[in-house]
Amino acid sequence: MIGHVTEERIRVRYGETDMMGHAYYANYLYWLEQARGAWCRARGFTYKGLEESGFKLPVVEVWVKYRGEVKYDEWIVVRTWVSEIKRSSLKFEYEIVNGATGAVVTQAWTWHVLVGPEMKPVSIPPEERARMERDPAEWAAAD
Amino acid sequence: MIGHVTEERIRVRYGETDMMGHAYYANYLYWLEQARGAWCRARGFTYKGLEESGFKLPVVEVWVKYRGEVKYDEWIVVRTWVSEIKRSSLKFEYEIVNGATGAVVTQAWTWHVLVGPEMKPVSIPPEERARMERDPAEWAAAD
Amino acid sequence: MIGHVTEERIRVRYGETDMMGHAYYANYLYWLEQARGAWCRARGFTYKGLEESGFKLPVVEVWVKYRGEVKYDEWIVVRTWVSEIKRSSLKFEYEIVNGATGAVVTQAWTWHVLVGPEMKPVSIPPEERARMERDPAEWAAAD
Amino acid sequence: MIGHVTEERIRVRYGETDMMGHAYYANYLYWLEQARGAWCRARGFTYKGLEESGFKLPVVEVWVKYRGEVKYDEWIVVRTWVSEIKRSSLKFEYEIVNGATGAVVTQAWTWHVLVGPEMKPVSIPPEERARMERDPAEWAAAD
Repeated sequence: MIGHVTEERIRVRYGETDMMGHAYYANYLYWLEQARGAWCRARGFTYKGLEESGFKLPVVEVWVKYRGEVKYDEWIVVRTWVSEIKRSSLKFEYEIVNGATGAVVTQAWTWHVLVGPEMKPVSIPPEERARMERDPAEWAAAD
Repeated sequence: MIGHVTEERIRVRYGETDMMGHAYYANYLYWLEQARGAWCRARGFTYKGLEESGFKLPVVEVWVKYRGEVKYDEWIVVRTWVSEIKRSSLKFEYEIVNGATGAVVTQAWTWHVLVGPEMKPVSIPPEERARMERDPAEWAAAD
Repeated sequence: MIGHVTEERIRVRYGETDMMGHAYYANYLYWLEQARGAWCRARGFTYKGLEESGFKLPVVEVWVKYRGEVKYDEWIVVRTWVSEIKRSSLKFEYEIVNGATGAVVTQAWTWHVLVGPEMKPVSIPPEERARMERDPAEWAAAD
Repeated sequence: MIGHVTEERIRVRYGETDMMGHAYYANYLYWLEQARGAWCRARGFTYKGLEESGFKLPVVEVWVKYRGEVKYDEWIVVRTWVSEIKRSSLKFEYEIVNGATGAVVTQAWTWHVLVGPEMKPVSIPPEERARMERDPAEWAAAD
């Protein structure tokens, strides 16, 4: 399954670079998180709202392949989709593209588990699953 | 002197919060930096370009007054202006406004010194000063 | 009032630098926070314990003067003391010293307000005040 | 090949947590970096010195499996070893252990490529390789 792709544009901050002159490897994980927020929003809901309804979706595994440099003040585009949904977990995949050249500069995935208020895994409810499988083209984005 | 104000909208990231439930106090300084980048851009130049021409503008002093909570997923607007320009230094002032309510949630200022390649203070060249004093309304923004 | 000084040694991380080659200005605020934690610990309690007992001590104002460079892999020493205690607020002051040369590279202060579970200011209880005014030499440090 | 393990103790900062109440997933990557610095140091050299001699060792791939919660003020121990050295690349592996319980809370690995001043991959020189393969027990740690 390859879900619909959502794109999020992000400009690299000075404080996200390190003395090597490009973005520090940990900061990419902030961008993936921002992109997941946009992915929800494109499907008419927010991750904040998901938490307010009693769920959380912590990251349990992450993989990132840094293929090239990402530098200060550049626009990057994070392309995000869900590639797998299991009983209580799901996998996001990502491509980070240089906004100017279109070159893929990073590939990544993250696995998440849906947990309830006690931080225990719970089955993804049908209505949550339906939202995750939505075609954004058919939905108004959340604010 | 109160320079023209530039506004930058920023959405608060999950990773910018802490266990107290709102944005961690250090992360506001990233937002101020992003807002300074937007301030340059609105005047037709970029901070990146300034560095490429051999200058740097490090922060030498910062003050922030946190007036209220800033939370995950909220839009904030950072209003930025230059209030003072000396021989080799300048002062930025900021108001951070809650994007939904318009309430001022933070006030801040930063002092910066213009330094050359040796990291020694240098006089602000007239052409740099002119760019800093531009009315953005009369200039095309940099990309 | 100048309270007893507590020192905390910290080694600068690579990810705390930026492309200018030294520590990014926001990261100093993490070090101040770590130093406050050490300050509590030297007086036989922990900030974590303070939160567990229903209080929080958010930062409401910060000032930092960056006097010189702090670079990757250097040891810094954060010297921390409380200079003022009011009804529901207190002020920490800091000097950051280069661990190798002893030079003061940064000065800073932060104001904090004691709040209860509702995030409303509360009077500092006498027993909390007593802990804050302790002479660490007379107390076993918390683990 | 399983190289000698180096352990680095780190106390979790408040600013490293997020509103979920435990450490934000990106911050683990700072700890891995600090642990690699300690790994070098235990073998009598520093990563800083490696860069000063004209090399860099950027991360090209990272994988992290978050097995449990890491919370504010806890001691964690990062156990680090090199499991593979190729012509111009090497793999670090890590276990993050809760300092109080000894439970493994995270597993991770990172791949790095040795690059020269032009950021192009270079063969790992024999003397660098020898340092990487050292038994720390036979060397005085770098300061």
